[in-house]
Amino acid sequence: MGLERIFHAQSVAIVGASQDERKRGYQAILALRRCGFEGQVYPVHPKEESILGLPCYRSVLAIPGPVDLALITTPATTVPGLLEQCGQKGIGGAVVIAGGFGELGEKGRALQERLVQSARRHGVRVVGPNTSGIISVRRGLNLAGIADVPRGDIALLSQSGNMALHLITEAALKTQKGFSYYIGVGNEADIKFHEYLEFLAADPGTRAIVIYVEGLSDGRRFLQQAYLASRDKPIVLLKSGRSSKGRRSAGSHTGALAGISEVARTAFGRAGILTIENSDELFPATEALASLPPMRDKRVAILADGGGHATIAADVLTDHGIEIPELSKATRDRLRAVLPANAALRNPIDVAGGTDSDPGVFAACARILLEDPHIDGLLLVGLFGGYGIRFAERLKFIEEDAAHQMGKLVTETKKPLVVHSLYRFAKPHSLELLRYYGIPVYDSLDIACKCVSVLATYGHYLATHHQRTNFVLDWGAGAKKRGRALIDGALAEGRHVLLESEARELLRLHGAPVPPDALARTAEEAVRAAKRLRGPVALKVVSPQILHKSEAGGVRLGLETPAQVRSAFREIVRSAGRYDARAEIRGCLVAPMAPRGVETIIGTKLDAQFGPVILFGLGGILVEVLKDVSTRVLPISRNAARRMLGELKGADILGGYRGKPPVDKDALAGLLLAISELVQAYPEIQELDLNPVVAHARGATVVDARILLRRNGSNHVAR
Amino acid sequence: MGLERIFHAQSVAIVGASQDERKRGYQAILALRRCGFEGQVYPVHPKEESILGLPCYRSVLAIPGPVDLALITTPATTVPGLLEQCGQKGIGGAVVIAGGFGELGEKGRALQERLVQSARRHGVRVVGPNTSGIISVRRGLNLAGIADVPRGDIALLSQSGNMALHLITEAALKTQKGFSYYIGVGNEADIKFHEYLEFLAADPGTRAIVIYVEGLSDGRRFLQQAYLASRDKPIVLLKSGRSSKGRRSAGSHTGALAGISEVARTAFGRAGILTIENSDELFPATEALASLPPMRDKRVAILADGGGHATIAADVLTDHGIEIPELSKATRDRLRAVLPANAALRNPIDVAGGTDSDPGVFAACARILLEDPHIDGLLLVGLFGGYGIRFAERLKFIEEDAAHQMGKLVTETKKPLVVHSLYRFAKPHSLELLRYYGIPVYDSLDIACKCVSVLATYGHYLATHHQRTNFVLDWGAGAKKRGRALIDGALAEGRHVLLESEARELLRLHGAPVPPDALARTAEEAVRAAKRLRGPVALKVVSPQILHKSEAGGVRLGLETPAQVRSAFREIVRSAGRYDARAEIRGCLVAPMAPRGVETIIGTKLDAQFGPVILFGLGGILVEVLKDVSTRVLPISRNAARRMLGELKGADILGGYRGKPPVDKDALAGLLLAISELVQAYPEIQELDLNPVVAHARGATVVDARILLRRNGSNHVAR
Repeated sequence: MGLERIFHAQSVAIVGASQDERKRGYQAILALRRCGFEGQVYPVHPKEESILGLPCYRSVLAIPGPVDLALITTPATTVPGLLEQCGQKGIGGAVVIAGGFGELGEKGRALQERLVQSARRHGVRVVGPNTSGIISVRRGLNLAGIADVPRGDIALLSQSGNMALHLITEAALKTQKGFSYYIGVGNEADIKFHEYLEFLAADPGTRAIVIYVEGLSDGRRFLQQAYLASRDKPIVLLKSGRSSKGRRSAGSHTGALAGISEVARTAFGRAGILTIENSDELFPATEALASLPPMRDKRVAILADGGGHATIAADVLTDHGIEIPELSKATRDRLRAVLPANAALRNPIDVAGGTDSDPGVFAACARILLEDPHIDGLLLVGLFGGYGIRFAERLKFIEEDAAHQMGKLVTETKKPLVVHSLYRFAKPHSLELLRYYGIPVYDSLDIACKCVSVLATYGHYLATHHQRTNFVLDWGAGAKKRGRALIDGALAEGRHVLLESEARELLRLHGAPVPPDALARTAEEAVRAAKRLRGPVALKVVSPQILHKSEAGGVRLGLETPAQVRSAFREIVRSAGRYDARAEIRGCLVAPMAPRGVETIIGTKLDAQFGPVILFGLGGILVEVLKDVSTRVLPISRNAARRMLGELKGADILGGYRGKPPVDKDALAGLLLAISELVQAYPEIQELDLNPVVAHARGATVVDARILLRRNGSNHVAR
Repeated sequence: MGLERIFHAQSVAIVGASQDERKRGYQAILALRRCGFEGQVYPVHPKEESILGLPCYRSVLAIPGPVDLALITTPATTVPGLLEQCGQKGIGGAVVIAGGFGELGEKGRALQERLVQSARRHGVRVVGPNTSGIISVRRGLNLAGIADVPRGDIALLSQSGNMALHLITEAALKTQKGFSYYIGVGNEADIKFHEYLEFLAADPGTRAIVIYVEGLSDGRRFLQQAYLASRDKPIVLLKSGRSSKGRRSAGSHTGALAGISEVARTAFGRAGILTIENSDELFPATEALASLPPMRDKRVAILADGGGHATIAADVLTDHGIEIPELSKATRDRLRAVLPANAALRNPIDVAGGTDSDPGVFAACARILLEDPHIDGLLLVGLFGGYGIRFAERLKFIEEDAAHQMGKLVTETKKPLVVHSLYRFAKPHSLELLRYYGIPVYDSLDIACKCVSVLATYGHYLATHHQRTNFVLDWGAGAKKRGRALIDGALAEGRHVLLESEARELLRLHGAPVPPDALARTAEEAVRAAKRLRGPVALKVVSPQILHKSEAGGVRLGLETPAQVRSAFREIVRSAGRYDARAEIRGCLVAPMAPRGVETIIGTKLDAQFGPVILFGLGGILVEVLKDVSTRVLPISRNAARRMLGELKGADILGGYRGKPPVDKDALAGLLLAISELVQAYPEIQELDLNPVVAHARGATVVDARILLRRNGSNHVAR
């Protein structure tokens, strides 16, 4: 069922209604009235006759008409029973406020499971439990006890009631923006993050979505839904709980799988989510995205009436990857015509007193800059709005005229303008006017710069990423019959590690560049195999019981003559037998020696929130000491694979270092893609480890392969 | 001369006084009157009889009494002549507002040079030119045209008038703090940053110093003075102009050597300067340091009344390197006695509704936490100050009582408390009270966390750094007679590169571990030298003209037999002759082969602002591809040398990687110290390059050494 019946509810039962002003069951009824909710409100109370003038009912079953939604404010243990009644009554959804479920650990989880069962049995969809509530702002359906929520087009999804209050207060105090919905997601026992996202994506009254999240219960579904939604509506997210102490805090109050892993960063970006690190920037970034056109490219002009602000803005924008290009001669000539001789025209543009007697010059400059086809957006920094305060009263009206001009300029040029003003504190009318036109005005340079930055990031995403990636995260496609047989065979033997010979065969089936090899059961078979392979070979013990082959003396390298191969085989078998007398030795893998080149590492593992992820790094100290790896949630596109190679700190090594030829990046990217497909094809794979993969001028070679299978064998993401 | 006569001026001449309200020469007189300046003010004007009721003088020479200070507001070209008159009059200092000097490039620099000559001739000290002015707040000596500067104990040094206005506005609007002095340093033509610092360090009315800087003209003197000042007064600095576009902006308006190099970061830290990256955090950090005791260690408790804020605060503090330790059992027991059963006591502490009916519980918790000897500071986050607004009027008074208690607690425990409150916008009296006690209150979690962080950083600096470092930056001590002869000899020959044999000898003189070697002029001398050295040797061509020895075929390695040495010598001489027919070949250096170990690199160079700096890195890809180096302004202490080894990304390699023994870090640190002393001893050294230095389990060996001398031979820092 969709969530419309909850968020568009025409009738609400308040289970736990109260006469006590301090109780949620009283405040909720009052809030519905104050917010102008026009639907039916049914207080449910075992004894009272009426509350706030509304007749009470003994239970939801006693309510005469149909009921869309129940707000349940009673203690945790009563909830499963009450949901049964809601189901019998045919109620579509329930908002469960009580804590005391999954966030408390083992005991709470059992109660939460009962809650889910009761709800599912009757098709009652549940918001929460352990939620601060929901608000459908336009309808006055305020079930969250937050007063004075400004109406607008931003939807707010939060795992913290305090952060919701924080963002709503900020919007009301500092901006002209407001909210379409507030949703406290709580423990996500029934309705998950991605379902709310789906609802909001389809909601015509929502233009942007802002999310405060400390942990996700199903990261893959969230990503998929975000990917679909972000084409039309920007999604801005503050990811919290990244430190261990932050996770400790998050775990104690949301019960979510606390913390979001490192892979989230690129995954969020691919899904079009704009991730904010700094809580001060969360609402401003959302405001900018909800109000302004995104930038076509990342070339920004800075217009300033003094040095310091321009310098800081240039620094901060540069940190965000924004370009501050030199201006074209044509644009400089046009600026020169309206600015004094000592103005700096190099970008940042410093008007050098050119606006002191006429701040209307700002609008003239803004027009010149936004009309320049090589400029995608404008940041105005300094004192605009303060000329009428600081210099002369009459300048106020000139500033207001300039604000009108600049506001219309944004609509006309479809390019964004963001304003920093030291005088925002004084709330001059000119700055109110800018906000009327959707132009964000901040007194923080850092925040103004962040607004510019997210407009560039979102514009870039829309322009490039969506055309190329298809962020489908389903598993299961593309398994080969022989591959399935290999995996099923291992599992049938009770093994959770593929033999190296099996792993190599599976990789080859999916097109990975694994050199030919042979499983030799006797020394003579090994000699024959070595002969077929030509050149020096390596021998590695094959035994289901021996995972650490080197440790068991089970690896010999660089064997050139039949005699060397023969004696190596015997030594390996002897040594492996000493290492583990009960090990079943199936023979030795005979493989050619690795070619020369750059050693790299490719691996996959299962992330608790996002499922299978792939990792790429350079062998040796770069991975082992510097942890220099790039990661992606699977599957990946060829583009993503190429980008993974480039984002290593040591990426230059692949480009040819100290006179060596560059390695074959297409081959590496192709291998990453092959691994992506392989891991999707067999959900049983827990972990895959190719170490090393030697990359050379023409191609890449998998030298060692290890594949672990999942112990539970399920094809769901481990929780 | 000290700067007291400027900042404590009893009489001021306004050169460029005007009747025009829009002119600086009018506004300044008005500002002095409005700010209650009690000294003499002498307008200087060629024709007017009086301005604002004060009699005018035709020139400073016509003023009857003594004059301490002149404010010069006339155009740039008039300034040198006016300074001559000031000198004749015996005026102690002049504030020169006009731009049009060094910041304009070549032409302006000539005028600035004339300004300096005029000033120096008569001992007139000059602030600026190109300055927004100065304010001595307590005296009402306002020569900067900024109105309503709150009085207080923070001194403000700025290279941007706008940033000064920014900080002053912020202080006035948001805090109860104010300023002792504002100084617009301008182009630093005469008085430099470090002289202002020296003055402020000695000023009893200044408790903290905040600096906005885009470039320094004499970084070493600045560091030395900051080092002396920061023992008593925290110095907080926003370093701007770090991006190329930021430098472009800075260069166009301050004329300073734009941008501050990367070495500044550690150098500022060693001098006790607290560097702020984010302009929003500059004043708050200063407020915290000027008002609160620094932390003894970095263990902080977070007290919250809701989840989201606590989680974010934990994340941000962790990013700042702050510890959020688990609480002791004793403390948890005490907290349990005042908080409800479902409160989280693990730090972050969540009161879980325990303050809803009694926000006084915050004060009780604050006492328990600050009395814990394992907690060094407290961060309160959430809704404090808003209980009276949100829940019930009477709670206001309880909050006010709690504010009094918490304020006194800071004095009593000598531990800082920083407060984040969502309700700061409403200006509740309880939050005013906190500020009365010097407790900063912010509605930004990031800013509140930054305040905590700088208190920890400054406390740590005071506790540890000052005891161990002696940040003396003078050059010239410790030269050896033989070393001086080597350098003088090279310079006498017109050489600016020491021969490798000379470089090695110089290094050895200062105790660097350079293995014995010999300069062989003939093949037979080389054979004899190789015999003396035992083991395989390397031969390297010695020629003043050949800098790139390998390129010239001038290096042969691993020579074991006399025959090998002999033929290598001949081949080197032949090959070098082919490479450069005019090169004077002085022979070959015979040196033992490098031992096995970890290859490292040690170098020094001259930084334009900070003079000699040292660099340490690991050889190979880490330096070449990852630019993994640590740097310090010279001289360094043994501690700093040890820390340099530790701060490399690849530092673990020195600790013994892949089963290799750890290298001798004492030997490496000793070598860094020796190089520090050597470079100080000979100011002629432009650049020194030891590449590689092989570090092994016992000791380190300099394998290759190159020393470049300065072309101008001066012992001043290059500009």
